[in-house]
Amino acid sequence: MSKRHLFESPDGLVNKALRGIIAYNPSLSLDEANRVVFDTAYDRSKVSIISGGGSGHEPAWSGYVGKNLLAASVAGDIFASPSTKQILAGIDAVPSDKGTILVVTNYTGDCLHFGLANEKAIARGHKSRMIICGDDVSVGRQGSLVGRRGLAGQLGVLKVMGGASGAGATLDQVYDLGVAFSQQIVSIAATLDHCHVPGRTEHGMLGSDEVELGTGPHNEPGYQKLSPVPSPEELIHKILKYCLDENDPNRGYVNFTPGDETMLLVSNFGGMSHLEMGALVDELLEQLARDWNIEPVRVVAGPLETSLNAPAFSVSVINVTAAAKNCSYSVEEIKAFFDVRTNTYWESMAGSQAQQRSRQQQFVHAPLEPKKTVDDAKDLKIDPATLDSMLRRACAALVKAEPDLTKWDTVMGDGDCGETLKTGANYLVAALDANLAAGGSVIAVLQELEDIVESKMGGTLGGILGIFFVSLRTAVEQNVDQAMGSEGVPELWAKALKIALDNLGRYTPAKVGDRTVMDTLIPFADAMATGNFDEAIEAAVKGAEATKTMTPRLGRATYVGADTSKVLPPDPGAWGAMVAIQGLKEGL
Amino acid sequence: MSKRHLFESPDGLVNKALRGIIAYNPSLSLDEANRVVFDTAYDRSKVSIISGGGSGHEPAWSGYVGKNLLAASVAGDIFASPSTKQILAGIDAVPSDKGTILVVTNYTGDCLHFGLANEKAIARGHKSRMIICGDDVSVGRQGSLVGRRGLAGQLGVLKVMGGASGAGATLDQVYDLGVAFSQQIVSIAATLDHCHVPGRTEHGMLGSDEVELGTGPHNEPGYQKLSPVPSPEELIHKILKYCLDENDPNRGYVNFTPGDETMLLVSNFGGMSHLEMGALVDELLEQLARDWNIEPVRVVAGPLETSLNAPAFSVSVINVTAAAKNCSYSVEEIKAFFDVRTNTYWESMAGSQAQQRSRQQQFVHAPLEPKKTVDDAKDLKIDPATLDSMLRRACAALVKAEPDLTKWDTVMGDGDCGETLKTGANYLVAALDANLAAGGSVIAVLQELEDIVESKMGGTLGGILGIFFVSLRTAVEQNVDQAMGSEGVPELWAKALKIALDNLGRYTPAKVGDRTVMDTLIPFADAMATGNFDEAIEAAVKGAEATKTMTPRLGRATYVGADTSKVLPPDPGAWGAMVAIQGLKEGL
Repeated sequence: MSKRHLFESPDGLVNKALRGIIAYNPSLSLDEANRVVFDTAYDRSKVSIISGGGSGHEPAWSGYVGKNLLAASVAGDIFASPSTKQILAGIDAVPSDKGTILVVTNYTGDCLHFGLANEKAIARGHKSRMIICGDDVSVGRQGSLVGRRGLAGQLGVLKVMGGASGAGATLDQVYDLGVAFSQQIVSIAATLDHCHVPGRTEHGMLGSDEVELGTGPHNEPGYQKLSPVPSPEELIHKILKYCLDENDPNRGYVNFTPGDETMLLVSNFGGMSHLEMGALVDELLEQLARDWNIEPVRVVAGPLETSLNAPAFSVSVINVTAAAKNCSYSVEEIKAFFDVRTNTYWESMAGSQAQQRSRQQQFVHAPLEPKKTVDDAKDLKIDPATLDSMLRRACAALVKAEPDLTKWDTVMGDGDCGETLKTGANYLVAALDANLAAGGSVIAVLQELEDIVESKMGGTLGGILGIFFVSLRTAVEQNVDQAMGSEGVPELWAKALKIALDNLGRYTPAKVGDRTVMDTLIPFADAMATGNFDEAIEAAVKGAEATKTMTPRLGRATYVGADTSKVLPPDPGAWGAMVAIQGLKEGL
Repeated sequence: MSKRHLFESPDGLVNKALRGIIAYNPSLSLDEANRVVFDTAYDRSKVSIISGGGSGHEPAWSGYVGKNLLAASVAGDIFASPSTKQILAGIDAVPSDKGTILVVTNYTGDCLHFGLANEKAIARGHKSRMIICGDDVSVGRQGSLVGRRGLAGQLGVLKVMGGASGAGATLDQVYDLGVAFSQQIVSIAATLDHCHVPGRTEHGMLGSDEVELGTGPHNEPGYQKLSPVPSPEELIHKILKYCLDENDPNRGYVNFTPGDETMLLVSNFGGMSHLEMGALVDELLEQLARDWNIEPVRVVAGPLETSLNAPAFSVSVINVTAAAKNCSYSVEEIKAFFDVRTNTYWESMAGSQAQQRSRQQQFVHAPLEPKKTVDDAKDLKIDPATLDSMLRRACAALVKAEPDLTKWDTVMGDGDCGETLKTGANYLVAALDANLAAGGSVIAVLQELEDIVESKMGGTLGGILGIFFVSLRTAVEQNVDQAMGSEGVPELWAKALKIALDNLGRYTPAKVGDRTVMDTLIPFADAMATGNFDEAIEAAVKGAEATKTMTPRLGRATYVGADTSKVLPPDPGAWGAMVAIQGLKEGL
């Protein structure tokens, strides 16, 4: 992982972060000396729930202070427990007539400091209790005296306790629910690398051929290194086996009986892309259903408890039915507590799942497009072998050019130009293999190109080519009569190209000189008006070459900045169009 | 940035991600072939708002589909626009009696594909319109034909439009609001490095001495590289100047008049820690108030529009008062639309700011603790110079040991042990400089140590030392009478140490052999019972040395795994306690 930070120094960083984090909710207050965030709108007639721990886990726990969740949070230094004094200040900030419950994850420092604060709070007259949450299955029973480590399953505990407290439950009811729920969670984490703590010189790192299983949220080394890196499917298989295999003599912490209602919490440690997190959730749900007969009734994924920006995640599975057996609430009531709206960061992940609907119902299939037909009266026919050969040579030229196009587009754009063209070329070759050109129909080819571009090619270039091919086909259809009569085929192409480019001009302001694909297409079409394909190709090459000296004025290349002294690569779109046109010629 | 991914291949990744992303809300459906996410609970009597674009920006836009926000989203490949066909499928999925509005960010591909889809949708009978959002100020007016690029300010546009649509507004009202709001946004992004796209071999990177300003969300190069890296304060100063300086002839896109109500949106591109994001928001709010007389009425920070996991962010400032002048809604109505609850990812960032409270009101100051006093009758007095010398030597030993302790703790734990002890030592030296030892009072020193440990030292070690020093002080106070009478001072220390360690045993199960600080403290206390300080020091050294061969059974070192064949460093807590004790002796 990168050691880069916006704030390189840890000095004052935690307090500054807390000041910023609370900005979204004006009802929150921050006691800066004690790093206590508390809700000024909290209700002292309800049980006060307080949590906290080291910093670097945001939104845990300062981001969870608000209605129906925490009354207060207490933050330590990065990855270090807050002090007893700080915790006491948190307890004092939100005194409750019903009582206070401290809910912490199972780390020695937090247990000690919150434990001592709990004792001192009782001595000061608070009805205070404490729940320690440990859900990590990575270290088995025989490996540790201290019990299971706390991971993001604790957020589930806080959420149901917060819902119950908000509904007016008694201290016993909220406490019993929290204990029962916390005992029915199995979790484990995995990381692609460690994060870097601002200001630290020491920096643990994984090898590029390693993944770590049983990662903790404080950048500490994990339980087991896996090398070579397993596929995501294999890794998730291992993760679920650690959590759910009841025959593991060292684990099997929670039993799951068919029909038990469950929840799945997936926490991003901060450095996983949201795209990959989505795919992770899908794979988890697929394997849970297939291998373990588990279909969670609630699915929550997001940065629940982070480890700065580590590219890691934790998975927690919770047996709600089993929890309900050990407290005064039913499964339905516990789910309702979980769904209660808050005004905290959690909000987006709650409340939308009260409706029942199976996962399969979420996936729909668009109706098939009707098969396109070619109207023979409007078709242009040419020799099938020539047509096939021209198209294949153009495709081959694009595939060959792809590495250069990608490289140039990475310098100036978003890097997808080469792949977009190669994808399109590969689909066209597949269509040719399926006898696209057998009838010699130009309209059938243009329809296929429209389809490929619309369905398979995204990006700016796909957009431009889509409009271009639709317009070109329509222009050929509308003018083929004349071509077969008074005018010839070269005149038809010249006219159709001009119409298509004029139409395109309604959607892009690009002209010759703007460093786009138009620098190839416009000179080519203009030269075609003279009826000479060789001259037209020469004009296309000249146009594409000229883009090397042009300042970008359109497209993403614009944003690279105004340094015109740099030697630029050619515009990859213009270059791609040029090599395709050359390919067509070679195939003649 | 790391090139590591959980899903190394882009094949099928986008669809898999969408399948996972919608899991949190069963009312959402996914048309996999077209990558359209739509809300089955949408209301066709309300204006349908649709957005989309390339993938890799999650939660944009699939995560924003739901009540009072988007009716549907359409996703392309990573960083590439979806095709016209896909967008049409999205429009068809949520037909509206009032009409449909496509809202896209200003990139050529998106403008083309959504533009063509808009035309085709109208031809199919939809009342469809399109809004293009461009808010990036990095490229000035003279640099580009295409207008401003779209950044996360667009999410603000979607949020107010969604609120208005949900409230039953007409097509004209929602459209006019969207246009007016989108024209009053200034945004710019900055990055510490580029992200890596799964499957790509090309990978742009910044130097470690560079920060890029005017970053786009597709990994494209930014407008300007800053080197050396500016301080966060300087960088944010530049960012706000680009956004807000009305005298910049090439920019000054939005005017802000004193009294205008504003909003601040800060988007995490995916790889910034939430901790640093909090500090960033604080610095922005501080500089906005100080330098620009702007105090936003709404503050939203989070991963609004990501760029996979790039360590980057964007800042958007919106003039709501100016937007209200150009549409049919008042400032209060627009804020209410912004606050409307949704069942999307956005939720947590909305709805909590309707209450008015100044930022300064959010920061509270805990009351000062009363000054502690020493009861002379219970005090143990020794020679002031000796006391001072012993404590200073102990502190010096801890400061000197810090690099080793940090290194060892990074191998086996979370790396904070050395810094925790050094911090405590530095505070004690400061207290000695302020004449702590001048009266020779042992109780005053122990009170000071309690204070330092409770206030300044977090972590497990801070917790253990806190209980230890409180218990030691109480034991000394309660037994000093006897020591001054029948017993001697060495006996007092032996007894007090034993009481303190017994008390500590109520909070930690650690015994000799468990590889903790107790491996030093227990042998030391036991040997002190013989009354010989030298022997006790020898026992402490032996205990600390012995931790090198112990398997961790408590604390974070437990989680490293069961490989007992490794040669381990000593336990840093045990070692720290030992060097401190040695230091006390040297000072005698």
